[in-house]
Parts: sequence; C-alpha cells; structure tokens
Amino acid sequence: MTCPEEQAYRLLTEYSNGFMVSQVLFAACELGVFDLLAEAPEPLGAAAVAARLGTSSCGTELLLDTCVSLKLLQVQTRRGKALYQNTELSSTYLVRASPKCQGNMLRYLARTTYLCWGHLAQAVRDGKNQYLEAFGVPSDELFSAIYRSEGERLQVMRGLQDIWSISGRHVLAAFDLSPFPLICDIGGCSGALAKECTSLYPGCRVTVFDIPEVVQMAKKHFSFLEEARISFREDAQYSGIECIHTAV
Amino acid sequence: MTCPEEQAYRLLTEYSNGFMVSQVLFAACELGVFDLLAEAPEPLGAAAVAARLGTSSCGTELLLDTCVSLKLLQVQTRRGKALYQNTELSSTYLVRASPKCQGNMLRYLARTTYLCWGHLAQAVRDGKNQYLEAFGVPSDELFSAIYRSEGERLQVMRGLQDIWSISGRHVLAAFDLSPFPLICDIGGCSGALAKECTSLYPGCRVTVFDIPEVVQMAKKHFSFLEEARISFREDAQYSGIECIHTAV
Repeated sequence: MTCPEEQAYRLLTEYSNGFMVSQVLFAACELGVFDLLAEAPEPLGAAAVAARLGTSSCGTELLLDTCVSLKLLQVQTRRGKALYQNTELSSTYLVRASPKCQGNMLRYLARTTYLCWGHLAQAVRDGKNQYLEAFGVPSDELFSAIYRSEGERLQVMRGLQDIWSISGRHVLAAFDLSPFPLICDIGGCSGALAKECTSLYPGCRVTVFDIPEVVQMAKKHFSFLEEARISFREDAQYSGIECIHTAV
Repeated sequence: MTCPEEQAYRLLTEYSNGFMVSQVLFAACELGVFDLLAEAPEPLGAAAVAARLGTSSCGTELLLDTCVSLKLLQVQTRRGKALYQNTELSSTYLVRASPKCQGNMLRYLARTTYLCWGHLAQAVRDGKNQYLEAFGVPSDELFSAIYRSEGERLQVMRGLQDIWSISGRHVLAAFDLSPFPLICDIGGCSGALAKECTSLYPGCRVTVFDIPEVVQMAKKHFSFLEEARISFREDAQYSGIECIHTAV
C-alpha cells in the first residue's frame, strides 16, 4: 500500500466511523458520565462510575476508555487501577453546571438529527426532508415537523441557546452593528442571540420576532424577558432557524 | 474565547457532526455518485448527475458540494459551471469496479451498524447489544442476530471481504507464518483472509472453519473455493468475526 493510498484509507475510515464517535459522545452525555465526574471529589474507577450511574460494568469500562481515546476523559493509573476524570473539553462543554455546556444541543442531535440523517440518501432522491419517515409527522411545513411537540420545541430552543452562547458573539461582531439603536431578530427563538447582542452593543435594543408558540415558550422557560432592552413580538409568519437575522 | 478552548470546541463539533459526515459518504455511495462519475468520459455538472441518478437537483448539488469539502470529489469550474469528478480516494475505494472498493462494508455500516449505534446509551446501561430494539430480532446469540436473513449474512460476508482485501496482508505479515504448512482460520467467513494468506505464504494451505450456513454461502457466492490451497469445514460451533484467527 503506497503512502497516499494509506492516508486516503485512513480518511475513509474516519468518515465511515464518524457516527460511532458521535454516539460515544452522545451516550456519555446522556448517561451523565461528565456530570458525575465533575461532582466527584476525586477521579473515579469504572466500577464506581457504573455503580453510581446504574450502568453495566463492561459497557461502562468500554465507554470510558473510548472517551479517553477521544480526549473527552483523561485516565491515570493508581495501584494498578484506572481512574477517570474530565478533560478541559468536557469540563467546559459537557458538564451541565458549566455556562458553556452544549448538552441540550447534543441531546437534540442524538435524539432527532441522528435519526433524520439515517434517511439522507432518500432525502437527496426526493429533494425534501424525511421527517415523515423518521418520526411519522408530515414534513411539508418544516417547522411544524421540528416543533411537533412541546418537549421537542423546548429541546430545539435550548439547543440553539447552547450554540449562541458560544458562537453568538462571533456572528454579531462580524459586522459593526453599533450605529443601530434597534435591531430585529427575525425568528429569534428564545432570545439567546438577542441577549448576546445587547451585551456586545450596549446602546441597542433588540426585538425578537417568532411564532406565538415559541414566544410563549420563551416567556415560560427562559429568563431573557427580564432584560429591559429585549422585547418579543408574536408573529405567525416568522419562525426559527432558517430565517434571516436582519439588522434594521 | 481562548485558543485552547476554541480548539476544544472545534473538536467537539467534529465529534458531534461525525454522523453527518458518515451519512454523506453512505448516501453518495448508495446513490451511485462515484460509479457514475467513474464511468462518465468527462467531469459532470450537478444537473447531469441528478438526471442520470434520478435524484433531486437541489439535493444532488448539496451532496456533491459536501463531497468536495470532504475530498471525496473534486470540482472545477468551466464557463461558470461546476463540474465534478472523483478523487484518488473515491476512485480507489468507492467505485464498484475498483478491486479495493469498500462499498459492501459501507453499505453494512449504513444499513445495520448505524441503526444499532443509535442505541449505544442503552447498550451501555444493559451491557448487551441492542439488536432486538434496532431490528426486532433476539440478540442473545450475537450471530443469529447478525446473520438474521440470507441477505444480511451475504452483506456481512461481502463487507468483511472488503476489509480483508485492504487490511488482511498487514495482519498476516505481523507475524512470520511461513514455517507453518497448515493454517486454520476459525470463523473465516468467505475465506477472504485465507486468500490473502495463501498469496502471502506460498508454502501454506488454509482450512477455513465456519458455521454451515456461512460455508454454504461462501460456496455459492465466492470463488475462493477454486483456490486449491484453501478448504472449508462446516462446524456449528465456529462463527465469524469475534473468533480468534488461530495459526496452528
């Protein structure tokens, strides 16, 4: 095997196994591995993790070791026993108590997006999303499918909040919006981006437009409404992710 | 955002999106993108690819451009029109006519493994595979689940053949087996590794042991039996992947 051919094969293997890597991350989050290790006063062995999470010992050990190989955990050996603790990556982004935790977004990817993407070939054939096949809900109106239950809507909103808490400032700083006293976020969901906006531009007010169900949920579950410079407007025409965030 | 934190976030995103990368690869293979481009006398535009594959134009263009970003395809622009062709990677490993094509293995990953891994968290809880949940077949006996239909058995066998055609020689060369006149491959499936073995060690004969169904399918669908130095033995106790390949 020549060297470039070997490199190509490695890349192919990385791609074909990518879903396994995603699932290791998703499973460790769902089972609470990172939260447990963050709360423990010292590194824990696999048996202790399994006992506290109520998971199988063999499966837990395999999961923890795979997390180590992905730099999601680090391991040290004391008296012949492997002890696991979080890395900087998991402490910052995977522990629920961290302000930068991406757990909601990862849960959405694991429970919804992963299933949809299992139908990608058919989606390319049809030229449309596969919500009907994946979840049994009609997909003609994308947001009816995405927001198909109150729980699912909340999950999307929390997931977007995770993303904007990391990327919002970068997006908003790409253009100087400081001359604008009023900024409208069309399809602004929970107001997470609006919050970043008022923080970055102290002189502005932000009006968030979204469909009534989303605005009502924002009022019920998110605290941005307390922010005097952010207001919400219900409008049946505006919804979520795919709308253009417009600066007026 | 500090630099190591940014790097960690990128790694996290790579992991969480890994399943999308896998599915782009799987979908492009399933739809026949690489075979079509290999057979075409010159690079093709997205509209031509869509027309010949019977896929949607918007979905096809998105898929092709994503393949470019993953180095699975390359693109050139002629008179303002994007034209796609295979890369070395796809020509070698993704085109059906290539002796190193990994298409069968990818199809198995896409149709079987991807679904199983969607239940990873539960598998770690239970400490056992999730074939019952994923496919409705009992999983107490792993190989009854894996070989649950004739089509599925054939898919596994062809997938393993893809893998051994690339990795077999590396595995067999790790130890010098030339002093052994008779080598037994226990759970040797279609005989793909046996074939690599007789090729690498001209002085040896190989006996492949596997369960009767696998041996019968090997006789029906694979041509290694024509190789005088390879013989098959049916044995209900030996089966497939997880057995140790033993050199006697």
